[in-house]
Amino acid sequence: MARLYDKYHSKMKKVADINHAIAVLSWDKEVNLPKDGAMHRSQQVATLAGLSHMEFTNKDFGLMLNRLDGMPSLSPAEKKNVSVTLDQYNKATKFSEAFVIRKSEIESAGYHAWLKAREANDYSIFKDALADLIELKKEEAEKLKYKEHPYDALLDQYEPGLTVSQLDPIFEGVKKDLKKLIKKIKKSKQVNNKFLKKKYEWNNQWEFGLDILENMGYDFNRGRQDLSAHPFTTSFSPMDVRVTTRVDENDFAYMLWSTIHEGGHALYEQGLPIEDYGLPTGSYLSLSIHESQSRLWENHVGRSKEYWSYWYPSLKTDFPKSLNKTDLNSFYKGINKISPNLIRTEADELHYHFHVLIRYEIEKGLMEGSIDTDNLDKVWNEKYKEYLGISAKDANQGILQDVHWGHGSIGYFPTYSLGSFYAAQFYAQAQKDIKKLNKKLSKGDTSQLLAWLRENVHQHGRRYESDELCNRITGESLNFDHFLKYASDKFLSVYK
Amino acid sequence: MARLYDKYHSKMKKVADINHAIAVLSWDKEVNLPKDGAMHRSQQVATLAGLSHMEFTNKDFGLMLNRLDGMPSLSPAEKKNVSVTLDQYNKATKFSEAFVIRKSEIESAGYHAWLKAREANDYSIFKDALADLIELKKEEAEKLKYKEHPYDALLDQYEPGLTVSQLDPIFEGVKKDLKKLIKKIKKSKQVNNKFLKKKYEWNNQWEFGLDILENMGYDFNRGRQDLSAHPFTTSFSPMDVRVTTRVDENDFAYMLWSTIHEGGHALYEQGLPIEDYGLPTGSYLSLSIHESQSRLWENHVGRSKEYWSYWYPSLKTDFPKSLNKTDLNSFYKGINKISPNLIRTEADELHYHFHVLIRYEIEKGLMEGSIDTDNLDKVWNEKYKEYLGISAKDANQGILQDVHWGHGSIGYFPTYSLGSFYAAQFYAQAQKDIKKLNKKLSKGDTSQLLAWLRENVHQHGRRYESDELCNRITGESLNFDHFLKYASDKFLSVYK
Repeated sequence: MARLYDKYHSKMKKVADINHAIAVLSWDKEVNLPKDGAMHRSQQVATLAGLSHMEFTNKDFGLMLNRLDGMPSLSPAEKKNVSVTLDQYNKATKFSEAFVIRKSEIESAGYHAWLKAREANDYSIFKDALADLIELKKEEAEKLKYKEHPYDALLDQYEPGLTVSQLDPIFEGVKKDLKKLIKKIKKSKQVNNKFLKKKYEWNNQWEFGLDILENMGYDFNRGRQDLSAHPFTTSFSPMDVRVTTRVDENDFAYMLWSTIHEGGHALYEQGLPIEDYGLPTGSYLSLSIHESQSRLWENHVGRSKEYWSYWYPSLKTDFPKSLNKTDLNSFYKGINKISPNLIRTEADELHYHFHVLIRYEIEKGLMEGSIDTDNLDKVWNEKYKEYLGISAKDANQGILQDVHWGHGSIGYFPTYSLGSFYAAQFYAQAQKDIKKLNKKLSKGDTSQLLAWLRENVHQHGRRYESDELCNRITGESLNFDHFLKYASDKFLSVYK
Repeated sequence: MARLYDKYHSKMKKVADINHAIAVLSWDKEVNLPKDGAMHRSQQVATLAGLSHMEFTNKDFGLMLNRLDGMPSLSPAEKKNVSVTLDQYNKATKFSEAFVIRKSEIESAGYHAWLKAREANDYSIFKDALADLIELKKEEAEKLKYKEHPYDALLDQYEPGLTVSQLDPIFEGVKKDLKKLIKKIKKSKQVNNKFLKKKYEWNNQWEFGLDILENMGYDFNRGRQDLSAHPFTTSFSPMDVRVTTRVDENDFAYMLWSTIHEGGHALYEQGLPIEDYGLPTGSYLSLSIHESQSRLWENHVGRSKEYWSYWYPSLKTDFPKSLNKTDLNSFYKGINKISPNLIRTEADELHYHFHVLIRYEIEKGLMEGSIDTDNLDKVWNEKYKEYLGISAKDANQGILQDVHWGHGSIGYFPTYSLGSFYAAQFYAQAQKDIKKLNKKLSKGDTSQLLAWLRENVHQHGRRYESDELCNRITGESLNFDHFLKYASDKFLSVYK
């Protein structure tokens, strides 16, 4: 019987090889592609995506999975792999070829409409394409099936099992408690972060970023850092996990915290079990758990006083002119400044979740039909006014700022907030489990934190579901209070 | 009927997409791969190679090709595409899956044995693997069939239609006439090229290489230059053709002429008709014709007095220290120095063909059984003594210097010499067809030469066979006399 499982694993490796080849082509597209190479590259990626889908949805493979499912001779991990794969197979085969083609056409049209709309800074250009995308997503949800809310079917694609009924109470916490905290902060003496916009030389930034990655435990024998318009992490196997960043000489924060963020993602990928290549147990669990790793490093480590008490002297040596009037304490406060702004990717740790909340409410509304794509830019602006107290002057600063909807990625945004909340809960546990973690960080020693993450998160891949993993690690399900406590402790000390 | 041809073209595009994805993965392997990423990358490439083979050798595709073959409604170019593809299909399907697997195992073992032997500088480590490779190649030749000589079946894989009976008289010319020319040169006053080994700063070399590529007409919107251990050109479509080079601060010649050489290959690929992507008419003709393009630029342009009369002032500006005592004439003579050495890739324009001749004689002998892999290192050294008057002190300087045999690439080497000879014949014609070509080059104007190559060679892809193309362009078949005349004119003037 083990032999059938081995055949299954071989097949999964083959599909993973194709998907990783797509990842190489996509990485190369962002990092290296000459100007005129885009058209053929897209076609090449599409061809491989078709082959991957064909291999994965092959009927014989379905029969194999059904034979393996529940087979008593399998180990628990093997059973988990088979059941996850069977679930993915059943979902993938719910779409007819005609539907898949139409889906990719509508998504492609959506993306190009979004690009055009961005260029013209005009939502009306994107509106009809977005309406088509929403219709498509409704159809998709019907095909995938759901129990309570059509949006659940979409959430599930990014975060298995996630539902509106789980998300609503969490975002209630954001709306109530986080709002209160921000109110308090607003009334306190404001902190200054102008030093971040001074000149930081390109080469020194680049080198500093590499040093930080190395210190985090990122293995350069199994990866590399490159430049791209938008930072991202990609994996071709745990032995080749690459990160990218962007360097702006007049905005030091951008390079640095995006590097730490992507570094956190990359450590997860480098820590997946190599022997399970191609299997669920060899892959990341979900987008939320992935984001928990990036956020944990970016915010809990990368914006902590302890870590900077180690790094700040080097930073001052590298950029003496721009930091000569800033001491560690001012630096620490500055990098934790709380202030509302219009752009999600530039938001601070607290306002960030209102950006996500707005997208969540709109997506949910669009899917249930309580919100319409007509005048959606106005709905957007009203929500920003309501939740952040500010409002975009144009579409590019507002509804057109994210590419996600253009790509048809609806149901993705909530995983960003969940990631932060999981990060807070995991980090609170790590603080309990690792003796004197803060002291270690203040000596630049991240090794035990990484070992803890490897042990508790990385090595398991998709062996458990998010909720299961969270309970194994912390003894309870996701609980927004951990984030709230972390945020209150930190920001009320920064703003005291 | 046109619709069946369109289906054929779609299928060919799909196969090309997979093959180009392999090319991206392979380029990335040479240019970017982190140390530990190699294992999974090889596996990913192997998976894609398997898919490509499976798609191409699919029985339905064979039926389609047979239906299309000779269909009267096809245009001549379409007929050519179908007949070339059918020929490739028939060859590809001659190998059983078991044979393909064994072949790839023996080739892989051969490569690793070669690597080990290189490391130990010991031919005996490679000997048995080479014997296995030769047995495999004999089997391959039997399967592929041949009329006169088993080696013909191998030659045909790199240069369609090429045979021993065509090659022998050409190499007779090398052995007789080229030897005579070299003898003459030896008796003349020797030229000095020591200035090439002075220090040439890395950055200035890199920039100079880019300037030369641009001047040749290489389109950076459709490609890029990177670094790799061994320079190469690769194409993902005519819209994305990449070159690599290597920069050695103490060996200026290496970077420069390898850049021009690869640039010549790349211009060919960038000049292929984009609308024929995936088809023979959208692909290079053969390895010899490919090499004719690189050699033409490298030697006929890149080592000409005219081209350097344009570039030499810039070169002196970039490297004033190393070139301050060298005038244009001495530079020109120095870069055309003729002197035997042991390493093929470092050989001058004339001795190069003796390096190839030696490999040709050995390969032919191995295939017909007149030479054995035992003591082949001694045979190698004897031939070097005979043809170049020098002999390797160790295996790495001798029989282990090239990777080709380790890869199972037997029948490849002769295309290097044919490429030079085609280059000379084509260039002689270009000199007739383009008014004042030399004067143009001395002004740095390569545009008409490139236009001539686009018109006569690039745009046709594999529309014609090599001999047909050569006749169309020059009115005769490949004729070694053109190379001999070029070489005599040039080198007897350098060595007068």
